[in-house]
Amino acid sequence: MNQNEFRKNAHQIVDWIADYWENIESLPVKAQVEPFEIYKQLPATAPDSGESFEAIMTDFQQIIVKGMTHWQHPAFMAYFPANSSAPSVLAEMLTAAMGAQGMIWQTSPAVAELEQRMMEWLADLCGLPKDWHGVIQDTASTATLCAILTARERKTNFKINTQGFENQSFTLYCSTETHSSIDKAVRIAGLGSDNLQKIAVDDRFAMIAENLEKRIIEDLQNDKTPLCVIASIGTTSSTAVDPLREIAEICTKYGIWLHVDAAFAGSAAILPEKRWILEGLEHADSYVFNPHKWLFTNFDCTAYYVKDKGILLKTFEILPEYLKTPLDKVVNNYRDWGVQLGRRFRSLKLWFVMRSFGAEGLRSKIREHLRLADIFKAKLAADKRFEILAPVEFNLVCFRYLPENEDNTEKINLANEQLLAKLNATGKVYLTHTKLKGIYTIRAVFGQTNVSEKQVELLWNLLQEFC
Amino acid sequence: MNQNEFRKNAHQIVDWIADYWENIESLPVKAQVEPFEIYKQLPATAPDSGESFEAIMTDFQQIIVKGMTHWQHPAFMAYFPANSSAPSVLAEMLTAAMGAQGMIWQTSPAVAELEQRMMEWLADLCGLPKDWHGVIQDTASTATLCAILTARERKTNFKINTQGFENQSFTLYCSTETHSSIDKAVRIAGLGSDNLQKIAVDDRFAMIAENLEKRIIEDLQNDKTPLCVIASIGTTSSTAVDPLREIAEICTKYGIWLHVDAAFAGSAAILPEKRWILEGLEHADSYVFNPHKWLFTNFDCTAYYVKDKGILLKTFEILPEYLKTPLDKVVNNYRDWGVQLGRRFRSLKLWFVMRSFGAEGLRSKIREHLRLADIFKAKLAADKRFEILAPVEFNLVCFRYLPENEDNTEKINLANEQLLAKLNATGKVYLTHTKLKGIYTIRAVFGQTNVSEKQVELLWNLLQEFC
Repeated sequence: MNQNEFRKNAHQIVDWIADYWENIESLPVKAQVEPFEIYKQLPATAPDSGESFEAIMTDFQQIIVKGMTHWQHPAFMAYFPANSSAPSVLAEMLTAAMGAQGMIWQTSPAVAELEQRMMEWLADLCGLPKDWHGVIQDTASTATLCAILTARERKTNFKINTQGFENQSFTLYCSTETHSSIDKAVRIAGLGSDNLQKIAVDDRFAMIAENLEKRIIEDLQNDKTPLCVIASIGTTSSTAVDPLREIAEICTKYGIWLHVDAAFAGSAAILPEKRWILEGLEHADSYVFNPHKWLFTNFDCTAYYVKDKGILLKTFEILPEYLKTPLDKVVNNYRDWGVQLGRRFRSLKLWFVMRSFGAEGLRSKIREHLRLADIFKAKLAADKRFEILAPVEFNLVCFRYLPENEDNTEKINLANEQLLAKLNATGKVYLTHTKLKGIYTIRAVFGQTNVSEKQVELLWNLLQEFC
Repeated sequence: MNQNEFRKNAHQIVDWIADYWENIESLPVKAQVEPFEIYKQLPATAPDSGESFEAIMTDFQQIIVKGMTHWQHPAFMAYFPANSSAPSVLAEMLTAAMGAQGMIWQTSPAVAELEQRMMEWLADLCGLPKDWHGVIQDTASTATLCAILTARERKTNFKINTQGFENQSFTLYCSTETHSSIDKAVRIAGLGSDNLQKIAVDDRFAMIAENLEKRIIEDLQNDKTPLCVIASIGTTSSTAVDPLREIAEICTKYGIWLHVDAAFAGSAAILPEKRWILEGLEHADSYVFNPHKWLFTNFDCTAYYVKDKGILLKTFEILPEYLKTPLDKVVNNYRDWGVQLGRRFRSLKLWFVMRSFGAEGLRSKIREHLRLADIFKAKLAADKRFEILAPVEFNLVCFRYLPENEDNTEKINLANEQLLAKLNATGKVYLTHTKLKGIYTIRAVFGQTNVSEKQVELLWNLLQEFC
């Protein structure tokens, strides 16, 4: 494909994209395909000779698009969103075209320095502690792994990095509602997930700080070394908010690393009226939230902040000869700020998004999402066929349907599982489930960039139809 | 930015991209900016109100582009390339626009199933063992971490994952020339980099298999448990090829996990005449190479293959309620194949690239790069002012300048350091260095997608000018 062909084909793709977005509501949100339906339509080997752009685009439209679950559909209410926006996609186009790999400052100074500024912009927007340092990671899974590794190394004076474990018994703490990535990171770091103590939650699904302290005292009495606490601001199941200030005080008292995981809900901190969720953060050690979830910035783009940059760098720094440059002591070489060596130019999309929306534009979008959740919650609350199963802290509503004259939990669970399947089979909405205290729970998240009252109505009408 | 504005702005960006590529040779390859020159031009906080696309694009062109090192410049001969191509960029545009997050099958069946097929296409192109299983990772750093964790868990019957370490003393092995990501992965996994035994290399910078076996025997005698060997096919400093078959036999004999790191050079296996580099791979356990380095596919896109899918999954599998789906036993949920939960739609660009180029097109590009390296090597070999410092196995030429009447190593090193700085300051080429046996070595890689004899001439002429 030569330059002229690229120009022509890229213009065609731009029109395809614009048309796709304009018509996205006519597509089923969740792909309505059977396992291996897509796979079987793809040949078993690559073609010997090159094929035309037209042939590829035809297959893309006929085979691939049918197998997509459309995350940018305004009725995508599943999991948490990975919401995007036009300015973010424009920046991704430039990022792809320049194809820079920002492992160190020298391999593109603009990649390193725009990243530094964008982390400052985000910190300012969210009211994060002023002297913290930010770095972009790919996902919150990786950021949390960084936090746990840094905690491990600080506690052992960086000895596990070099010598491995020596008969040490560390413990970590999170609530029973914490995300599975914490378990995964604890395993990767060699700490053993049996040593991750799951602290009970209250009726709002937030960690009971008192229980945390009891457990730490018990562990200390049993010659264990408390290493790290992970507090969740907005759990995955119900966006519960752990009591950060109380937890931070406990961590300070016992010298334990405090990592704060606000992967989804952290974006709400750009609203002054939601800033309370981060009260006490200044006493924590690390913090993560995902602009790629709820800040209109393409996946992947995770913002990771630490109080002490030196400990992070000392945990990850390795400097082979072939990566040495004369400026290593002066500039930020972000390869030393995390797991991977190679790094995409992710800050460009943050710059495009924050400048295009402006702080006010971002805030008004987030506020609108909170308002939509309130509308839906009010509808459910006014109808005795439904039960709201968790406090609505942000834009996620956890609920279930209560079939008439049915009080057997298992049967109610099954009815809700069937209801969810019916809703998703319409292709008009896509929601997912969780369990809260053993209760099958339907989750509706109003966080897609273009979600509006129309989708709230649509969901409500479908519930009327099926319940 | 509404739909119409997006359409207009995106078309403008396409033209910018096409113009950028057409004029890229007029730009300095390596950014010619001072530390913080870009940073200082960026305001300290995000704007309150949204700004126009024109304002953002103007700043992008005036501030950001100046601070870019242009990885897609044909005279980018530094590190290893992260080469891209027009079809890859087109696919990245679609990936960004659909913004799907492929953590599990259900969140986009096409993402999972195209990935499975593309890993099969690549395996077939490279002649990998037929029954292996492939998955896309972000970088080789992450893939190697996966390999080491899987080795750790297999050896301990998956007990470190849950219980942590217990007074065990594991050892790992690689050559003295192996990439720093191995050290990093060993640290992250809690194994301790002091336990990573660096085996000596021969005069081709390839691991001496005999020394490996000796070291393993010694370690066994000292009650250590050999866990994993990492063989390099194409080291970073000089693209040396470790003797895979011999190493594999040793690993089989002692029951040690063998991970093969062909991050850069693995792409050469698409050539029948280079297929020998992977001889013995069928006796290894895992394999990684980066289509994002030398297969015209945008960073990031790493191909990771394992012999035993079950061990990989058992190492990483975690299934919280909110991620359960009715098809979990039927389909591939790639979140369980690695570290991160969230995953971009990376296979689309591989599909676009392999179909646009065709297998023959890919092979002819790779062959051309090998030919260019041979031309440059011949020029150096014919000129007594230069010394070739390592075998040219692929498209990397390691060399130095020998100033007349100078035989002090330190002074020759310094002269070459200065020569490299001069070359890069021209902005016409960008090369980096390494050290081979203590000798300061200039590395010239001919791997950028559009590199041609013109760039070989250019580099040669600059050497004439400065030497």
